[in-house]
Amino acid sequence: MHNFNFYRDLFTEALTQEVEKLEKRDTENLYVPVIYTLGIGGKRLRPALLLMGYSIYSNDYKKALPAAIAIEMFHNFTLLHDDIMDNADFRRNQPTVHVKYSDNTAILSGDAMSILSYEYLTQIDTPNYREIINLYTETALQICEGQQYDMDFEQQQDVSEAQYLEMIGLKTAVLLASSLKIGALIGNAPSNESQLLYDFGYNIGMAFQLQDDMLDTFGDYESFGKAIGGDIMANKKTYLAIKAFELANPTLLKELKTWFSTTNAVRDEKVAAVKAIYNALDIKAVTENKIEEFYKKAVDCLNCINLSSDKKEMLLDLSKKMMKRDS
Amino acid sequence: MHNFNFYRDLFTEALTQEVEKLEKRDTENLYVPVIYTLGIGGKRLRPALLLMGYSIYSNDYKKALPAAIAIEMFHNFTLLHDDIMDNADFRRNQPTVHVKYSDNTAILSGDAMSILSYEYLTQIDTPNYREIINLYTETALQICEGQQYDMDFEQQQDVSEAQYLEMIGLKTAVLLASSLKIGALIGNAPSNESQLLYDFGYNIGMAFQLQDDMLDTFGDYESFGKAIGGDIMANKKTYLAIKAFELANPTLLKELKTWFSTTNAVRDEKVAAVKAIYNALDIKAVTENKIEEFYKKAVDCLNCINLSSDKKEMLLDLSKKMMKRDS
Repeated sequence: MHNFNFYRDLFTEALTQEVEKLEKRDTENLYVPVIYTLGIGGKRLRPALLLMGYSIYSNDYKKALPAAIAIEMFHNFTLLHDDIMDNADFRRNQPTVHVKYSDNTAILSGDAMSILSYEYLTQIDTPNYREIINLYTETALQICEGQQYDMDFEQQQDVSEAQYLEMIGLKTAVLLASSLKIGALIGNAPSNESQLLYDFGYNIGMAFQLQDDMLDTFGDYESFGKAIGGDIMANKKTYLAIKAFELANPTLLKELKTWFSTTNAVRDEKVAAVKAIYNALDIKAVTENKIEEFYKKAVDCLNCINLSSDKKEMLLDLSKKMMKRDS
Repeated sequence: MHNFNFYRDLFTEALTQEVEKLEKRDTENLYVPVIYTLGIGGKRLRPALLLMGYSIYSNDYKKALPAAIAIEMFHNFTLLHDDIMDNADFRRNQPTVHVKYSDNTAILSGDAMSILSYEYLTQIDTPNYREIINLYTETALQICEGQQYDMDFEQQQDVSEAQYLEMIGLKTAVLLASSLKIGALIGNAPSNESQLLYDFGYNIGMAFQLQDDMLDTFGDYESFGKAIGGDIMANKKTYLAIKAFELANPTLLKELKTWFSTTNAVRDEKVAAVKAIYNALDIKAVTENKIEEFYKKAVDCLNCINLSSDKKEMLLDLSKKMMKRDS
């Protein structure tokens, strides 16, 4: 088994070949935005996780590549449609598809990516094919449910910490979890182990999303790849916001409520004001503690699997890398 | 084997049960528009075709119901997203989802329906499971390609008859064809026969779409279920328009070009003017001849299958019903 970068590079190479095939398809206007979306890049975290999950049990990683492409295709489809719904102009410093092309193009090319992901997934050839398709489909639907909750919460006055954690579980953690589990299933892992890998991935995913919330407010533009304070400007009820509403005294609460009901504030002013409230309430540390809690749960799951120390090390290294979020 | 109405009613009953299950799912705001869309109704042509395809070879129709629900779910997903892209306010006299709820709701609920369709499809349990999933996925992607061509053609000056027929083949005919074939495959049909049923469905689908084009201009509001002249107002290059451009003399061509470049004309005035040109060029008869051509091809395919006369009669009855389009 190799490290994350090895599998990421392996995946990138395979993806390049698939993109060349997509370029040759007719209906150019349908596939050009798909290729653009795939080309914007990203960490390729999910396909690398899938290949790592597979490589714990088997060496012939080519067998898992179509599923890795399926997972990345699906993830990029959700980003594409989320960007329309969130009215986001940029992703990873590049114009989003609905801005570069049009809303209609973004809708339809996203639809095509969702189906293309099945085209890749169904290329796998293992005895547990059905279990994999079922898990994949269940996960895909959970992601839609997570996005729905996310949109609901924007309209909702009170969102509890538990509701929020359920939402990010659905929207983010299940796909990371399923990536590992699908890889393991293709590698014919024992079922208790594939489930433990799922749980490991789920908890790392939760930590990862909370980290993302934190970077949206406390990160910097260069390494985060998008403008800081986007969640604040959108009045998003992130983990930070929910804890701030929970912990604020009446004065700060009133101030928070005012900011979270403005939609036309000057960006710098609003972001600075909300950050100041977060700082007064030590929200960064509160969030870091929660991240640590999920991280520890993830490590516990990993420790329950009978893995050689080098394999465990590879997965832990990746987890640390994800938490640092240096790219 | 029974007639179309029998299978439509069978399907409607099964769908009602599934809708009750959907009502119990969490993420209410995601599933309410799905249930609304499924409830708007429609002819249930595709699932009935699937059940008829199955019933040619087997009697235990319950085995084919999940796939029938999958097909109808997928079809309604495409309508939902097409209605956003076409900016359509009504479907079957009911407000469309993006009008009744919002664009975002329509995008996300459509995504969920696309995935839900796989959730149903993967419930089938036959030895040729993989062949069915592959055909379904290929068909779904072709439908996206068809929709892309449809949108491309709106921006394109010249669209040939051949290009147009390819487009409607992808956008409409392949799903009718696949409905029949998937039903037949679940019933373990011999492969040459399942392919002939596909070809029958494809040609009937072509005739059906051309009929739809004709009704959009020459139908009446009550039986068509949507406003007449929508294609003309949207400057859609339908079969009627393409043939009119092809057959028009310089005077009529100039007139046509003028109308087809207006976007702010008074509806009644524009529809009447374009219809008058169509009438001068006998476009209705030209289209009817093409419909007849596809219809005959479909019947030829059916005649190549070794079917009992009562089964053949049921399929021919349905074909005639489709051509009449009385609901």
